[in-house]
Amino acid sequence: MKKINIHPLLAVPTTELYFGERLLEGKLLAELCKESKNRIVIVADRALQDLYTTKLAQRLNAHLLTIPSNEKIKTNETAETIEHELFRLKYGKDTTLIAVGGGVTTDLAGFVASIYMRGIDLILVPTTLLAMVDASIGGKTAIDTPFGKNLIGTTYLPRAIITDIETLKTLSDKEWFNGLAEILKIGLISDASIWKIAEKEIKNSELILKAIQAKINIIEKDPAEKGLRRILNFGHTIAHGMEAISHYEISHGEAVAIGCVIESYLSLKLGYLPENEFGQLQSIYRSFSLKLPHKYDRKKLIEAMSLDKKNIDNQIRFVLIDRIGHALSFDKDYCRPVSEEELISTLDWMEKTYG
Amino acid sequence: MKKINIHPLLAVPTTELYFGERLLEGKLLAELCKESKNRIVIVADRALQDLYTTKLAQRLNAHLLTIPSNEKIKTNETAETIEHELFRLKYGKDTTLIAVGGGVTTDLAGFVASIYMRGIDLILVPTTLLAMVDASIGGKTAIDTPFGKNLIGTTYLPRAIITDIETLKTLSDKEWFNGLAEILKIGLISDASIWKIAEKEIKNSELILKAIQAKINIIEKDPAEKGLRRILNFGHTIAHGMEAISHYEISHGEAVAIGCVIESYLSLKLGYLPENEFGQLQSIYRSFSLKLPHKYDRKKLIEAMSLDKKNIDNQIRFVLIDRIGHALSFDKDYCRPVSEEELISTLDWMEKTYG
Repeated sequence: MKKINIHPLLAVPTTELYFGERLLEGKLLAELCKESKNRIVIVADRALQDLYTTKLAQRLNAHLLTIPSNEKIKTNETAETIEHELFRLKYGKDTTLIAVGGGVTTDLAGFVASIYMRGIDLILVPTTLLAMVDASIGGKTAIDTPFGKNLIGTTYLPRAIITDIETLKTLSDKEWFNGLAEILKIGLISDASIWKIAEKEIKNSELILKAIQAKINIIEKDPAEKGLRRILNFGHTIAHGMEAISHYEISHGEAVAIGCVIESYLSLKLGYLPENEFGQLQSIYRSFSLKLPHKYDRKKLIEAMSLDKKNIDNQIRFVLIDRIGHALSFDKDYCRPVSEEELISTLDWMEKTYG
Repeated sequence: MKKINIHPLLAVPTTELYFGERLLEGKLLAELCKESKNRIVIVADRALQDLYTTKLAQRLNAHLLTIPSNEKIKTNETAETIEHELFRLKYGKDTTLIAVGGGVTTDLAGFVASIYMRGIDLILVPTTLLAMVDASIGGKTAIDTPFGKNLIGTTYLPRAIITDIETLKTLSDKEWFNGLAEILKIGLISDASIWKIAEKEIKNSELILKAIQAKINIIEKDPAEKGLRRILNFGHTIAHGMEAISHYEISHGEAVAIGCVIESYLSLKLGYLPENEFGQLQSIYRSFSLKLPHKYDRKKLIEAMSLDKKNIDNQIRFVLIDRIGHALSFDKDYCRPVSEEELISTLDWMEKTYG
């Protein structure tokens, strides 16, 4: 037997993130696209047509494809529909795909870009707070399946991210809350200064930039989620399960907020998080009047968590914190399994508190 | 406006290739799987069940999923069927997928592994000559679409490749020819010594190992196909078009063999390839009695080539050679557009020669 080691030389990827106002008027994007001479296609949330994307497509001489911004369309079928439309219009590997919208749009269009002709140039333009601070950063793309959320996807880094905070001016309170839940989460796991700001003022562009920078610091160290990056999943073990059993009727923000409280409670019960820190973090979440989804069912929740991507040997694993601003390492696994008893007493508490 | 550069640290990937005999008895695979403690699923060509895979699955305590080895099943639908079966059986991110079969199996199962929970551990076991020398090396995964072959896919490196040449003992002549066409191609673009051996003896394990090594040398330098790797596409601009218009009734080997002659003829006509080299290479292909597919139609061929992944601005581009063993660089583009006149006179010659 002969053994040959294959060592491909991979180029070091870089993503340029532009943060500011009035970036969607097209000048910046036109410059970013000019270099490559690629043909351009914009995949955008349908709701943004009148506000930005029709004009942007004209300015960039791009084809505009619009999709509804509904979690229910983040499927294999929609991805295939977009791909076939691009094939029909003879878009080649020399195409730049610009995704404009919230997390549904950037996740789905990013996935298409990552598999279309084995990957085409990608630029993300997040227009919701959630997409700005979370979905657009770190290269995760995804579609949902009947078995759970984000279970199919790739890790595919965009060439650029254009974060135009002017788009937040038209954001609904519900959408604002979706992003805030992720900002608070990143504060809990890695940056206590985010909580200091959030406790004073919630709509604050410094808060947004801090959350973005905190996420970048994590994903730069562990882009492939072999360890550290798992801490970004804090609150999400419960949250993804909750969304699945509610058939995505509960918003991601609500699910993440409940998930963060529950996984903080678990951190408390397991003896990692001091009582006073738990009290402090609970007080901010108390102002949001969180509620379990209408269709809540404990058995279904546990079943839905059985396909969590952190699981090993079908054991559910949780990220845990020992203070506001710090997640535990657990020998660089950054998560640990939890016994059935511990999980059940935590769900008892959750049902009593939010039921 | 603020600009932040994101530089994720990517681990350098390595693929271990094992080449030899009796590697499929399971000892090597059991060792490779033991390290990770993952659950194991084998996705295999149905025809190999009695020969290898039922026993292998028992030995590895793995779940066996079988698929027909037919290019027509290399689709999004089959990929989704496999994914859903794995979700149903609660396979998590801690899964090793072992793909056993020819190029259809390794392309399709590799694609599934690359998107299942954003990527799971992958081991390829190519059992056809084509898959050994070509499909299994370099991380390309793919599915076909109604618009053409391999138009959706990823670049995803397997952890290991097990190349057991004993599996070739049961290989049909047609399958042998499929692999030989790729071996000759890699000889034409990068290694004249392959041709020296092939002119004497075709069924030779040194030939297989040389072709594997030649391909590794290319993909290590340019894994993402930004330049050099394009030379592996020699003969394939014509070949992929030919396969598409024949609805995959022509074999990949026949298509690649015709494609290599035609693109060599183009190299001759454009003044790069000397007449005597063209004569020498033609003589080996003459012994294969090549024929254009039954449904050949020039207009449809040109239409089918319009989605070739090398195209820029909808212009078809070709890899060209200037001697047996050397492809041209064209300023590191490794391919060039060809005028309509040149293409038409080449197709005239092809229709006269193989029609």
